[in-house]
Amino acid sequence: MGRAIGILIGTGTDTIMNHGFFTIISREEFVERLKVFASLEAETVDLALARDRVLAAGLTASHDWPLLDRSCMDGFAVNARDVFGAGESNPGYLECVASLPIDRLPDITLQPGECARIATGGILPEGADAVVMVEHTQAMEEETVGSTIEIRKSAAPGENVMQRGEDAREGRTALAQGIVMRPQEIGLAAALGFESVELTRRPRVGILSTGDELIEVTGTPRPGQVRDVNSLTLAALVEQAGGVPTRYGIIKDVLPSLSEALERAIDENDLVLLSGGSSIGVRDLTVQAIESMDKAEILAHGVALSPGKPTILGRVGNKPVLGLPGQVTSALVVMHVLILPLVRHLQGDGHAFSETGRAVRKAVLSRNLPSKPGREDYVRIRLETRDGKPDAAHPVLGKSGLLRTIVQAHGLARIPAESEGFYENDLIDVWII
Amino acid sequence: MGRAIGILIGTGTDTIMNHGFFTIISREEFVERLKVFASLEAETVDLALARDRVLAAGLTASHDWPLLDRSCMDGFAVNARDVFGAGESNPGYLECVASLPIDRLPDITLQPGECARIATGGILPEGADAVVMVEHTQAMEEETVGSTIEIRKSAAPGENVMQRGEDAREGRTALAQGIVMRPQEIGLAAALGFESVELTRRPRVGILSTGDELIEVTGTPRPGQVRDVNSLTLAALVEQAGGVPTRYGIIKDVLPSLSEALERAIDENDLVLLSGGSSIGVRDLTVQAIESMDKAEILAHGVALSPGKPTILGRVGNKPVLGLPGQVTSALVVMHVLILPLVRHLQGDGHAFSETGRAVRKAVLSRNLPSKPGREDYVRIRLETRDGKPDAAHPVLGKSGLLRTIVQAHGLARIPAESEGFYENDLIDVWII
Repeated sequence: MGRAIGILIGTGTDTIMNHGFFTIISREEFVERLKVFASLEAETVDLALARDRVLAAGLTASHDWPLLDRSCMDGFAVNARDVFGAGESNPGYLECVASLPIDRLPDITLQPGECARIATGGILPEGADAVVMVEHTQAMEEETVGSTIEIRKSAAPGENVMQRGEDAREGRTALAQGIVMRPQEIGLAAALGFESVELTRRPRVGILSTGDELIEVTGTPRPGQVRDVNSLTLAALVEQAGGVPTRYGIIKDVLPSLSEALERAIDENDLVLLSGGSSIGVRDLTVQAIESMDKAEILAHGVALSPGKPTILGRVGNKPVLGLPGQVTSALVVMHVLILPLVRHLQGDGHAFSETGRAVRKAVLSRNLPSKPGREDYVRIRLETRDGKPDAAHPVLGKSGLLRTIVQAHGLARIPAESEGFYENDLIDVWII
Repeated sequence: MGRAIGILIGTGTDTIMNHGFFTIISREEFVERLKVFASLEAETVDLALARDRVLAAGLTASHDWPLLDRSCMDGFAVNARDVFGAGESNPGYLECVASLPIDRLPDITLQPGECARIATGGILPEGADAVVMVEHTQAMEEETVGSTIEIRKSAAPGENVMQRGEDAREGRTALAQGIVMRPQEIGLAAALGFESVELTRRPRVGILSTGDELIEVTGTPRPGQVRDVNSLTLAALVEQAGGVPTRYGIIKDVLPSLSEALERAIDENDLVLLSGGSSIGVRDLTVQAIESMDKAEILAHGVALSPGKPTILGRVGNKPVLGLPGQVTSALVVMHVLILPLVRHLQGDGHAFSETGRAVRKAVLSRNLPSKPGREDYVRIRLETRDGKPDAAHPVLGKSGLLRTIVQAHGLARIPAESEGFYENDLIDVWII
């Protein structure tokens, strides 16, 4: 059976009368707890639909590729010995004995002093081991079979030749399990005749919004009401990471409603996201709803990120359930830092949590950026391109409940937990978001 | 009527008996000729499907957002004057006169010496202009309406408050035409009640493969035959850039077949790609096929890129037609450098051809990389992550007819046309591909 993931979203609660405390863990520790969840099972997928997905089983070549030695260039197939020392001032002369067809095995064997016209992709005949590009030759008479060709450049054995088996060898793994299928990997699989491939299934991600002040996007808010922004935003992010989001709409801010919706979302998904507000009351409710499930456990009550601290990680059976901050910018940061990597991880991407996969630009900070040690800070950055110099990185400061700051930003800069911040003119990494 | 784009693919020809010459232009000049093609028309799209697409019409806010001043925090709404100078050693004391509902307009007005409990997202009552976080307060008795609250921190006017209209102002443009809809822009559109948006249409891209040696991916090649790798590879790239590819399969390597297929592809698409082989004979055939169309013009016979030189740009009516190099790696480089930006450009992305949009990593070159001045070289790069240091950039050299080199690579490094190359230990930009 498939595993399913769901998400609960919300932005507030009615009144909050208890303060409450919760323990928070570092981002690294949070990631370790996410890595424990296993990747999903494999499914067979048409090669044309494999883009950005992860191979669940390696591809073994059933034959060498190329099948035989092929020319990389238009020119003349030669034996390197016959053109040794040839040059502009010291050309060699060979007899052209054939014009080789591109799509068939040549039926000739080159003898010493002979060459054969060959096109890009053509198979080298017996007796040939190199190709001289047509640009370095000259026909001495009308070029036909039997004419003499002037060769103005020497060729080393193997020059301008794609060797049999250079791309793949019969019986060997051509693409290993865990590889992400980019267009070029799709190309290699096509070259080897794979019409379909085994890929790790895309996680289904359930998204639940809670908050009595929330209304549908189609509604008209009266004072105090807010349209449900997070459902659509989180769904777009989930798709970006290869997940399949399902929006469960706005769930009433009381335990029975939330528990019922959560149970259904967990049943139907591999991961559930609850956007349940950052206020303490809603956070408590999220924790209670998770704990009310069968085989449930809270793995983290918070993470040392700013913004993003009130993030809850639970497990129901073998499925992760995450309670996100209700503030939209905080939720976006948590998605980029923790949850999109989790969505990739569940798809079998072994580099999901590594920094290497992130799109980063180096940029020069335009002002000092102080930070409180003990937590990682993620600062929204607007990039300004400058002629002949690295981009300038302008911090976009502002309240995390607003969308403006993250709409104006091109990326995020991470200030490490142990750092007191960055200085003006520091060259920093900006994650493109 | 829609505009349509198609692609012609192929890898060779039978025999090549003429050398042929063609003029090549610089990459910059080639880009200028691509920019002349206009972006496509607008269509109305559900907001949930807008990700990565471009706004064809700006979004005007029909009301301020936030509607009114809202709290960013759980705490107490105060008048800043009442908590001026308050601190740990010098607390202030205010009477809590209400616990405000989150989803309705408060029906109270704060008087001097009063405060009101407020949750994140709650609307500030009349008379309040700031919020003190709950962490900086203490109830002096059981916290109820009428109880006294100790305030241990001062607040400036506006502190912890999202101001009315900070995200969007009534009657003003909230998101401008030409903006790419990232998840955060989708969020802002949702906040303002847009269920659907006007987006520039995604280009339809026709992909044609030519070459008598080509067989379907499902076939078993005999010596000399090659599976059609480029159709699937190019289609995956087109999707990556937001285009809608249609594969027209393998077209026979003779003018009548090619012209007929091209005519149909141009009719059904906004852009056509012909992967027609890099050998001179196939290039000539591609040019002839384009020229045989009604209102056709060849705009470029080649571009000063390596690999990728034998790239043909034509126009049929107002639709671009591109003849790609048949060597798969060359075709991939041309796609990344020229054609994916064109696919974005046709979608109305004004930054399509700028470098800013590219995912780039800075890396340290592991060896000298010489280059012939006069053309841009694109070198495949394998990145190696290193603890606490920038990645190492290892050039992956090899024949461009093979897939191995580009499968092993993480990115491309561009050596400018005027440069003689890079030195070992140079910090270079690597485009992630």
